Amino acid sequence: MKIVDYREKGFKSVLSKIINRGETDTSGVEGAVRSIIDDVKKRGDRALVEYTKRFDGVDIRGRMEVGAAEIKKVLRTVARKDLAILTLAKERIERFHRRQVQNSWFTVDPDGVTLGQRITSLKRVGIYVPGGKAAYPSTVLMNAVPARVAGVKEIIMVTPPSERGIDPYVLAAASIAGVDRIFRIGGAQSIAALAFGTGSVPSVDKIVGPGNIYVATAKRLVFGIVDIDMVAGPSEILIINDGTGDARWMAADLLSQAEHDELASSILITTSKKTAQSVRREVKRQLESLKRRTIAEGSIKNYGLIITVDTLNRAVEISNDIAPEHLELFVERPMELLGLVENAGAVFLGPYSPEPIGDYLAGPNHTLPTGGTARFSSPLGVEDFLKRSSVINFSMEGFLTLARKTERFARLEGLDAHAESVRVRMGTLKNPKKRR
Amino acid sequence: MKIVDYREKGFKSVLSKIINRGETDTSGVEGAVRSIIDDVKKRGDRALVEYTKRFDGVDIRGRMEVGAAEIKKVLRTVARKDLAILTLAKERIERFHRRQVQNSWFTVDPDGVTLGQRITSLKRVGIYVPGGKAAYPSTVLMNAVPARVAGVKEIIMVTPPSERGIDPYVLAAASIAGVDRIFRIGGAQSIAALAFGTGSVPSVDKIVGPGNIYVATAKRLVFGIVDIDMVAGPSEILIINDGTGDARWMAADLLSQAEHDELASSILITTSKKTAQSVRREVKRQLESLKRRTIAEGSIKNYGLIITVDTLNRAVEISNDIAPEHLELFVERPMELLGLVENAGAVFLGPYSPEPIGDYLAGPNHTLPTGGTARFSSPLGVEDFLKRSSVINFSMEGFLTLARKTERFARLEGLDAHAESVRVRMGTLKNPKKRR
Repeated sequence: MKIVDYREKGFKSVLSKIINRGETDTSGVEGAVRSIIDDVKKRGDRALVEYTKRFDGVDIRGRMEVGAAEIKKVLRTVARKDLAILTLAKERIERFHRRQVQNSWFTVDPDGVTLGQRITSLKRVGIYVPGGKAAYPSTVLMNAVPARVAGVKEIIMVTPPSERGIDPYVLAAASIAGVDRIFRIGGAQSIAALAFGTGSVPSVDKIVGPGNIYVATAKRLVFGIVDIDMVAGPSEILIINDGTGDARWMAADLLSQAEHDELASSILITTSKKTAQSVRREVKRQLESLKRRTIAEGSIKNYGLIITVDTLNRAVEISNDIAPEHLELFVERPMELLGLVENAGAVFLGPYSPEPIGDYLAGPNHTLPTGGTARFSSPLGVEDFLKRSSVINFSMEGFLTLARKTERFARLEGLDAHAESVRVRMGTLKNPKKRR
Repeated sequence: MKIVDYREKGFKSVLSKIINRGETDTSGVEGAVRSIIDDVKKRGDRALVEYTKRFDGVDIRGRMEVGAAEIKKVLRTVARKDLAILTLAKERIERFHRRQVQNSWFTVDPDGVTLGQRITSLKRVGIYVPGGKAAYPSTVLMNAVPARVAGVKEIIMVTPPSERGIDPYVLAAASIAGVDRIFRIGGAQSIAALAFGTGSVPSVDKIVGPGNIYVATAKRLVFGIVDIDMVAGPSEILIINDGTGDARWMAADLLSQAEHDELASSILITTSKKTAQSVRREVKRQLESLKRRTIAEGSIKNYGLIITVDTLNRAVEISNDIAPEHLELFVERPMELLGLVENAGAVFLGPYSPEPIGDYLAGPNHTLPTGGTARFSSPLGVEDFLKRSSVINFSMEGFLTLARKTERFARLEGLDAHAESVRVRMGTLKNPKKRR
């Protein structure tokens, strides 16, 4: 793991290599994905069966949907202790996200104008859950619980089939989170099914959840027909440290992100040269016994970095430029730094808040903005499953107060039919005989 | 204007032609837009000057930014009465949008876990304002005011130059709304400048505002590097009527949308066959004297429709499927219907709330979801200029309560480094001698 001081000449270029690592070119798969989407749109279930046979090697004819009996059977294979952990996670996630619920409101002003904002939930939502080795029950909880809390009426989950069947923990999480229907489909074909609907799969208003490049490209292509969540890039952690604390803990936290993906990035910014050295040593030592060592090693080698700085303020400045997905303020007085943090998906305060606890049980969402997008975007939340409508109600008096000014404004913009819509009312109201 | 009963055979196909009218194919311009973006990214200001010369026929060398003296001079040409209208609009928009401001919050649970959500505003935002005939001061207000209310530190406006100079009302609106800097650039080149920054133009975190197909395509291509607002389709109005009220008023409201664009859509759904007839007559009559008659006529002919229904509930059902941008509940008791409305950008209640008053002076935003996207998206608002960060702070006790369960959850997902980050802490805490 490279150590670099922020005043060194090469610092900016080292950092920008890390920041820009996630730019993937999807143009190579776009054509293939587009033709799958068009085919599913046209041929529906028949296309789904064919693509699932071809890509997943499984025949889903007549058993596209996972039945209640099957779910029950699989759930019996999950240990009660593990079910309890999933349930606790669900409860903690739910409690946090309930705080995000927004209420409709109305205001009435003395002129007789009532204005309001109505909040309603999306009706039907689709969740993509990857299959294979990357079967993560936490993903199911983090996507389904906020939708449920928002009041979404129907949650549809899709996940690619495999010979072993669907991961039992994923099924358990879906059942605990209140997913309504589960379909054994994956890839671009499942995204098309959710966007347009087929004989078996209902169309939804929004598709969320992580996926490979085919899934991500398909989501981007159907965006506008349905809503999508952000397309997540590789994971990141940035730790800011003041020279206090245990180097082993920091090293372990850096590695927890490095194991995700060779493109993941782990950065430590510290005011202590000594800590820089010890964390580097610890990362090396801990790497040796990791199960996902090859991945973590690749990530640390290419996108791991230790930055030494003169002050903590400088550390936060650099962090604000990076806008990390996960930010640990691993310092004695984290609250003093929090106010300076401008851009970060989630901020973990102090040594007892390791990032992985936020992935599972803390309560806030683990779907977070990556690749610097924390400058302008937010963790997945209840808000993503709600929409607003404005409500405008003028009394006759309220209307007359603003009518002439509205007419003039419309004429300024050259929109005469806009002006007429107001004028025709004024004409009738002044001359009530004309009223029909 | 066609009248059709919802029970008629052809009804669904007539309606779906209208709903799907907005699907524009941008692939024809994508190549050209991409090369402009790459060029501005590489050559900065020099590219901006060249493209502006080529596309707008104006030489902006050395005068890319609109200076304070110039703004002052132009403002003197605007009548005081008109400035007062713009100021009133700004105040009413501001008052409504202030209600949308969100607060950060924290909760502390008895286990020693502090969780929170921090709300911060985007730092710098760009607003695109079209030039030429479509110079709309209301657009400036509707985009800049919510950004200002959200606390955005710097608002940058771009608008293409013309020989006549920038529209004085647009400049007045920018000045009243508190736009910080104005640049005389437009098209795809201005979007690239805002996304990547040039010597003169600072890069922003989000770009909002309407534009032609080049601007819309450029926004779509830079999305991810910066945030963008939705890409607006052609405008729509849907009026639900119960047979009460003045046919002239309804006809005028339908035409107010029709004059925007030949692709605009105006629909009336009424329970009264008599109203259907009178509104049709009125539309025809009023069309004759409209300044933008050709546009409005084209729109009404292709995408105008009067639907007769048996009940108001049926009318709302059809409206929910369409998810219109603007919905007028032109009925005696609009509040009784409001609860049934699932999808609509803005809802106007009763006969004294004509849609155009919402475009200018009511207060809610006039940037609304079009083309059925009201199923999942919302009017532009303060929310679009804010972002959330989660905050997670565990005490040692809080950590120990969840540590073992977190470790187990991580192992279930095969993420051992995640588990280790928790375990290494537990090890040290149990055996304090090991603590460094």
